[in-house]
Order: sequence, then structure tokens, then C-alpha cells
Amino acid sequence: MRQSILFTKTQKEAPKGEVARNAILLIRAGYIYKEMAGVYAYLPLGLRVFRNIERIIREEMDAVGGQELLLTSLQSQAVWEKTGRWSDDVIDNWFKTKLVDETPLGIASTHEEPLTNLLTHYASSHRDFPLYIYQFQTKFRNELRAKSGIMRGREFVMKDLYSFCRNEEEHAAFYARMKEAYTNVFKRVGIGEQTYFTYASGGSFSKASDEFQTVTDAGEDTIYIDEETRFSINEEMLDDEASLKKFNLSKEKLVAKKSAEVGNIFPLGTKFSEAFGLMYRDESGNEKPVIMGSYGIGLGRVMGTIVEVCADEKGLRWPHEVAPFSAHLVRLGDSETVLTAAEKTYEELLRAGKEIFYDDRKGVSAGEKLADADLLGMPMRIVVSEKTIAANAVEFRDRMDRRVSMVPYGEVFARIGT
Amino acid sequence: MRQSILFTKTQKEAPKGEVARNAILLIRAGYIYKEMAGVYAYLPLGLRVFRNIERIIREEMDAVGGQELLLTSLQSQAVWEKTGRWSDDVIDNWFKTKLVDETPLGIASTHEEPLTNLLTHYASSHRDFPLYIYQFQTKFRNELRAKSGIMRGREFVMKDLYSFCRNEEEHAAFYARMKEAYTNVFKRVGIGEQTYFTYASGGSFSKASDEFQTVTDAGEDTIYIDEETRFSINEEMLDDEASLKKFNLSKEKLVAKKSAEVGNIFPLGTKFSEAFGLMYRDESGNEKPVIMGSYGIGLGRVMGTIVEVCADEKGLRWPHEVAPFSAHLVRLGDSETVLTAAEKTYEELLRAGKEIFYDDRKGVSAGEKLADADLLGMPMRIVVSEKTIAANAVEFRDRMDRRVSMVPYGEVFARIGT
Repeated sequence: MRQSILFTKTQKEAPKGEVARNAILLIRAGYIYKEMAGVYAYLPLGLRVFRNIERIIREEMDAVGGQELLLTSLQSQAVWEKTGRWSDDVIDNWFKTKLVDETPLGIASTHEEPLTNLLTHYASSHRDFPLYIYQFQTKFRNELRAKSGIMRGREFVMKDLYSFCRNEEEHAAFYARMKEAYTNVFKRVGIGEQTYFTYASGGSFSKASDEFQTVTDAGEDTIYIDEETRFSINEEMLDDEASLKKFNLSKEKLVAKKSAEVGNIFPLGTKFSEAFGLMYRDESGNEKPVIMGSYGIGLGRVMGTIVEVCADEKGLRWPHEVAPFSAHLVRLGDSETVLTAAEKTYEELLRAGKEIFYDDRKGVSAGEKLADADLLGMPMRIVVSEKTIAANAVEFRDRMDRRVSMVPYGEVFARIGT
Repeated sequence: MRQSILFTKTQKEAPKGEVARNAILLIRAGYIYKEMAGVYAYLPLGLRVFRNIERIIREEMDAVGGQELLLTSLQSQAVWEKTGRWSDDVIDNWFKTKLVDETPLGIASTHEEPLTNLLTHYASSHRDFPLYIYQFQTKFRNELRAKSGIMRGREFVMKDLYSFCRNEEEHAAFYARMKEAYTNVFKRVGIGEQTYFTYASGGSFSKASDEFQTVTDAGEDTIYIDEETRFSINEEMLDDEASLKKFNLSKEKLVAKKSAEVGNIFPLGTKFSEAFGLMYRDESGNEKPVIMGSYGIGLGRVMGTIVEVCADEKGLRWPHEVAPFSAHLVRLGDSETVLTAAEKTYEELLRAGKEIFYDDRKGVSAGEKLADADLLGMPMRIVVSEKTIAANAVEFRDRMDRRVSMVPYGEVFARIGT
């Protein structure tokens, strides 16, 4: 894509009132736009990152047998009454609205109820299970405060998968596969090293849950890490002697670090299946409630965490698989020679199927272009200038490790991923 | 995909209270689920159709230079006050909600205001324009009645593109390109022949608008068609002598037909750019308001219309480019011979990169399987049975024209698109 065409521009100043580092950088770089606190639009470059994260998660969910659907944002009171969660006292961050005839509607904060209810129309025999069903859908949460940028929004897209199994063994086996799938996701989006599998308390549905926590000062949690095993526990479990013993952790070895929860998986038991009568008949004809599990990843949370973990003082640094473009081709100078060489390089890279962002802007200084390239954070910067032309090469610079090398024309393709 | 794994099942009966033919068929086939009137979830097969329509539209929008972003569903009162459209008297189908601190919020019914407002942060020079910006985003509309299935929902995804041009000539040129892009979209989704470019009145923004109307009894409109030129006018313009003359139409030649509006494009003029101060400085430094245009396609509307136009008395019939799968491989019989032959065919088709839905269900009668295949409506049905094995072939049946032919094994791949 040509940078001269892109409608967004970089901004030197952070927007007033924005305190989260991830949002400040993403807004300055033109990746997102703040509509109001906790509500962000995704601009073209940001949407490309978002879609890459979505694609990675989808591939991993499909690999464990997930079936994708798309539930609705408008939700019915009757469905939520079944579990008693319609009440604002139970879910305290509901957004609600109403039809013209005054019928109240919920605006989806989560989807356990609608999905369990839906499944009662399709599954009832032991032959219909197990099922693993997921979606990418917007969640609306009426947070009192929203100061974490895209890491905790009032409106955000979540991948939520729910598992429906016939017995505890089947549930445990799938739960273990999802741990692996999540590990793959965080590795692929580029924060695998900083992300720890974390034992945590379970909230209202279960005694315990398993979190994927990424070490970053922008996090709202504190985890205690055993670096040897890469296992950690959430602060709230630190004084639970039984848990420490269960996971063979010694309190003295644990190191406390600030972290952000990027994924959360936990058993739901039969709370929802019993409320909606989602039962199956086993081989002997006995009715049994389905055992459920819940597996969430907030896409904005992941994107914001990548920014927090990877960015440096010059700007964003995107891991290869989520980057909007593999490389940022920067033309320095507007002379006919440079123009011809840069255009030729761009066209050849495009023809070779590479995803290239091309700074073809005229009348913009070298300093400004290079600063923009640092802020925008494509994994590789490729400079074409009078100097590189004289050397019959282009200049490559890796945004992560900042290493610079001159690459002869013939070797350019091999150096860039697709 | 194996049908035995898919969680949805076909249903013989139409759901109570559902009156729209498109929704009845889609629900019976397990493509969608009715959450409430005008609010439908997309189940795995339905989501595949939906994504195909989305992909086609995206390709056509990118081809005319569209830049994709994703605006928010939660909207601010202040932004909408700028055009006076916050009032329920002006937009009578708003859904609204509020923050914990009682701040009112709009739930997006459309996005002209937020987008125009957003652009004032990025574009101000004549060099920044023209711009063509689009998104696929959910619209929420508090319709009094919702009886048209997925053709008119209270919650639905729309592709909305907005153009921002410097002068009328630039606007007219882009407007003409969008007409072509829309023509391509409707052709590719399989309703090109039934869809007419229609001159209509313009509502509150402009004197006239251009609609793409698809002839179907399920439509809410009536258009008057000149079959020779394939041009038509909306009923409301029939007595406008000036328009008839302008388009060289003679009233006697026009044939009235019921139709559904599948796309709508119209000039917005400077209404929004003036309200938000979206101006550009021309070469001489004079400030001028940007000239806007609006181009919408509702994805559910298109999908519902395809159903209304293409379905027959046995069920759905998907045009090739939007079908969830290119072919439905149906195994008749569970004998070892048939099982082996069907599995081998399935695996070979998958390896060849074909998108195949495979009815591998055991203990289901031939009649039931064939009826399901008709209802589900993949473009091609491929039967493997004792009979076809004896003939060293498979049976192909085209869902559209119902033509049946025996295809020798060696020629199977060539007969199925990707």
C-alpha cells in the first residue's frame, strides 16, 4: 500500500486525557481513533493488525475442532432470567436498551446464556457431543472507569469458545488441548516468552481458573512466577497452601511481576446446562447435564499487550505475524533516479506477493520519514536512496534488534517474509 | 467438513411466528437462528455464506480504492448533535443506552456523523482528497415491526462506504465507478440478472438516489422496468415527468415488478462536511467543504434476497461464489465398500483444495440424506453409492438446473470449482 494514499497521519502529540501507553502510541501512529473513553475505532493499519490476530486465533480454534458462528448483540431478558444474571446486581456492567414497545433488551456483555439456550434446539443425544463452539463478537461492558486504552474497553471484540462435553474426562482432555492452543496463539502473536500459564481463583463459576498472563507494567494483575517451570500463580492464590503444594511451588522461589491477563480458560460445570435443560441421553437412555467450559481472548487486549511489551521509545514494534505489512519501503529523496529505483523495488516486491507499505510521499524530509517508520513499527524497514543506489543495494533495518545491513538487489526477496 | 460433526440439524417444520420465506428456509436448514424478531444469529453454514458475501464486497471496494476501517457501535451524543440527528424525532429508530454515570450513548444506526468527525483529524488539504472509506459494521435499528427475516433486521451488518471529493466532477466520476462496483457485486453473488439499476427519490439528503433493486415477491418496493435498457424507476418517481424524460423512458413500456432494494448509493452533498467543518484548502488557500457520497449494502439483505430469488420448493440453492461449500458429497449406504469409496473421494477432493461438505452420517436413510442435500443447497451434489461404485463413477447433480450425470472417477476434480 502507498503511504501517500492512506488517510491517516502520524501525530507528534499524545491526545489529551489518554493515559494508557498502548493507546497513546496507537493513536499517534494512526492505528486507532478514540471515540470516547474505552471506545476505539480501528483505522486501516490497526484493522490489519486486528485481522491478523483474529486469523491466528481462528486457525488455532479450528485446529482443535471449533465450529464458528456469530451470535447477536441484542439479547432477550427471558433468556438471561433463566440464570438470574439479567439483574444489574449480578452483572454490574450491563448496557441495556429497549424496543419501541418498551420491551427491555440486553446489549451483549457475554454469551453463555444465548449459546446454551440455542444449543438445546440442536443437541440432545450423546452422539451430538462433544461440541466446541466459538465466535468473534463484540462485547459491551459498562465499565465505571476506562483508562487502559484498548486493553480494557467498554466495547471490544472477544473470541469466546465454549465446550460442551459428556463427562469430566472428555472435558479435561479438551481443556488440556485448549491450553496448548492458547500457548500457540500467544507464541504466534509474538508474546510467547512473556506469557505465563497462571493458576488463579475462579470467580463465580468455578473454584479455580487458568489464566494466560503477560508480564508488563501496564497490567492490572500481579503474578508470582517460578521461572524454572514457567508456571505462575495469581496474587490472590498466594496464601492458598493447598494450591502451592498441588503445583509443587515454594513461595520463596516465586518472583512477583506486574502482568496483564491476555487469555482466561475455566470450567463452567453444569451451571448453564442445568439452567437451560441442555441434557443428553446416554447409551442407556439416562438424561445427564452437559459439562461446559469457557475460553476467552480479547483481541484488543492482545493487541494492546503486544504494544506494551514490544514498543520502544521510538514507537511501535510489531512481531512478524501480526504486523500490518511485512516491510516498510522508505524512499528518501524525490529525484528521478531515486523515484525510479523505489517504484521498481515496490512493484517487484508486490509481484513477488510481499505485503509492503511504501512511503512514496513527496516533499517529506528524510528525518520525518524515518521517524514515521519507527513509530509505525513494521518489522523491516527498507530504504532506497541515492546512497543505496550508488551501492547497487537497498538498506535493511530490523525494527526489533535495529540491525542494519546493505542487501544487494538480487537478495531482497529472500529477506522478506510474505 | 463432515456433516456428522456439524452441530446444526435440518428441521422439517418452520418455526412458529416466522413469516418470511428466507428466514423459514434458512432456519430449517440450520443456517441462522432466530434470537428474537429481526435479530438472527449466523450458524456455521450461514456464516460461511455471510463471509463469502463480505469477501466479494471487500474485493470490489478495494478495487475502487476503498480504505477499510472499523468504527464503533457506541456513539456520543455530542457528535450527533452537530447535525441535529441525535433527536428521536429525526432518527426514529435509534436504540440508546447510557453509561454508569447516566451519560446517554447512541447505539449505531448509521455512521455518517462519527466518520465525518473522525476525518477532520486527518484531512484538511486538497492533497488529502479524494478519500473512499468503508467498513463492515453492525447497525442497530429499532424497527417497529420486523417481519422480513434477514432482509430487514433490528441488528444487521452493513458495508457502508463514504466518498469525500473536492468537487462535483471528482464526485461524479467516483459515483460512476461505484455503480460499476455494485453491478459487479450483485453479479458475483448470483443475482445480477434479477437486479436493476433504479432511479429513486433521495430521502432527506438529496433530490434523487440510485438503488439496486432485485425483482422478488418478497420485496417491499415496486419498480417500473424498461427491459430493453435494463433501467428502472422506483414507484415514487413514476409521475415525475422530468425524470421520465431525462432517462428517455416511456411510461407505457414500463413493467411493474415487486422488488427488494439490495444496494443504495446517493450523494450527500456538503451536509455533513459543513456540520463538522470538514474543509480542504485548495491550491490558492481557499477553504471549501468536501463533497460526500454514501454507498450501502446490507449483507443480510443480500443473503436473504439470494434465498428469495434462488430457492425452489425443495430448499436453498446457492450461487457458486457464495455457497458455503462447492459440493455436497453424499454417501448413500454404510457398507464397507461404500464407506471406503466415499472416504477416499472426500480425502482426494480435500487434497485437491476443493471445499466439500461430506454427509458421512451413519444410519440415516437415503431419502433423508437427499432431502437434506436439497434443503442445504450446495451448487453440486455428488453421490457415492453401491450403484455408482458398480459404474466406476460418481453421480453429479447440479442443484440449479437439476441435471444429473455420471462422472468417471478421473474426471471428478475438473467438474468442481474451488
